Amino acid sequence: MHCDRGSGGYSMAAAMAPRPPPPTLESILLVHNVAKRHNVGTMVRSATAFGVSEMILVGRRDFNAFGSHGSTAHLLFRHFHSLSEARSYLKEQRNCDICGVEIADGALSVTQHPFKKSTAFLLGNEGTGLSPKECEICDFFVYIPQYGSGTASLNVTVAASIVLHHFGAWAGFAETRREGNKFSVARRPVKQVRRNFCNESVESVIEERKNRRDVALQDMFHEDRSDISPGSGLLGVLFDD
Amino acid sequence: MHCDRGSGGYSMAAAMAPRPPPPTLESILLVHNVAKRHNVGTMVRSATAFGVSEMILVGRRDFNAFGSHGSTAHLLFRHFHSLSEARSYLKEQRNCDICGVEIADGALSVTQHPFKKSTAFLLGNEGTGLSPKECEICDFFVYIPQYGSGTASLNVTVAASIVLHHFGAWAGFAETRREGNKFSVARRPVKQVRRNFCNESVESVIEERKNRRDVALQDMFHEDRSDISPGSGLLGVLFDD
Repeated sequence: MHCDRGSGGYSMAAAMAPRPPPPTLESILLVHNVAKRHNVGTMVRSATAFGVSEMILVGRRDFNAFGSHGSTAHLLFRHFHSLSEARSYLKEQRNCDICGVEIADGALSVTQHPFKKSTAFLLGNEGTGLSPKECEICDFFVYIPQYGSGTASLNVTVAASIVLHHFGAWAGFAETRREGNKFSVARRPVKQVRRNFCNESVESVIEERKNRRDVALQDMFHEDRSDISPGSGLLGVLFDD
Repeated sequence: MHCDRGSGGYSMAAAMAPRPPPPTLESILLVHNVAKRHNVGTMVRSATAFGVSEMILVGRRDFNAFGSHGSTAHLLFRHFHSLSEARSYLKEQRNCDICGVEIADGALSVTQHPFKKSTAFLLGNEGTGLSPKECEICDFFVYIPQYGSGTASLNVTVAASIVLHHFGAWAGFAETRREGNKFSVARRPVKQVRRNFCNESVESVIEERKNRRDVALQDMFHEDRSDISPGSGLLGVLFDD
């Protein structure tokens, strides 16, 4: 299938002369019905490495944490049943662009950093790429150039990682400090009430948010999250579903 | 452990003012005793996506092709028993730099593209990063900046993919043409005589080389490989081991 909504105002000319990023930026990873649940674990690891603020699962709520190396405890998860709910949240509450990662007509190379503001990256199913419904919620598309003819596309985790890596570089996210030849890992901020599942009990969500605020907010995110009122954010959204 | 050989002449100043790449360039992926054999399959898929000329396995010769999506047939494999043999080959027969992918003292960010010529990228074991012996064969090091504190390092396949992606962009490799929303895949050039293993029988190597020459050389590689004489290259190297 094709995503041919064009570049949604992200013209080639604009991309060639990249704008400086606004002062407060976030990246969000948006995953819809990934078929191979083991891909999510490694995706979580990359998301935490590249400063992603939260990971939104649309559709399937459970995942396989194999490959995450414990990093699921460091990431905020959110769940929506439908793409349109996810879009409403991202537009109305997060003021994000939604960027489809797809070799689509009008897609720009991610190496051009065609970003304007906080961005949620939508990755589709491994086999078929983004569906027409998925493309509909996107504001623009990026693709990752390939230089060989041995594969039609990249592994979905690899694609997500490359795009998040570029966004972090464009946004000027502060580099994590190191200890020897590893990047420093923060204390585990979240007690997983139920593993490998996007929680939705009142208690788990309250506990998760409290832990996050107390322990690791300053390490984990690149903005002050005090603007998230008790009635919004993870708790509200999960119970609005 | 630390790799502290510095940047091997690849100073920060030089990196800040990147040189134009020489006209004929190759990237090579060098893998030493990767512990999780399933990582190799996805690494092969990324290698073929990013125009890698060959993949060199040092130590373990067998691998799990899960995740390669058939791309193993499109990649030239080579095997050495030791790192020093691999280095001799890369230096004497390929005139390559060897770049360790490691968060080492003196390592430069891969986003700076600190490359000079054809480069072999050495990835170490998943758990411990590059060992002192592995660091010894490297001319310089690159690392991938991280912006979050949920993981000490990236998955080895993700790291390899990001580095190969950047090298291809720096080298100006020609972008593969597309068919719809996929990159075009060449005809399968290699009959795998034994799957998931770096072949070494005379017949298999001869057959592999013949197939490569006949079918897909122009699609698969970014230089004329006629300089590889019958006595050198894969066949010779495998039997010199």
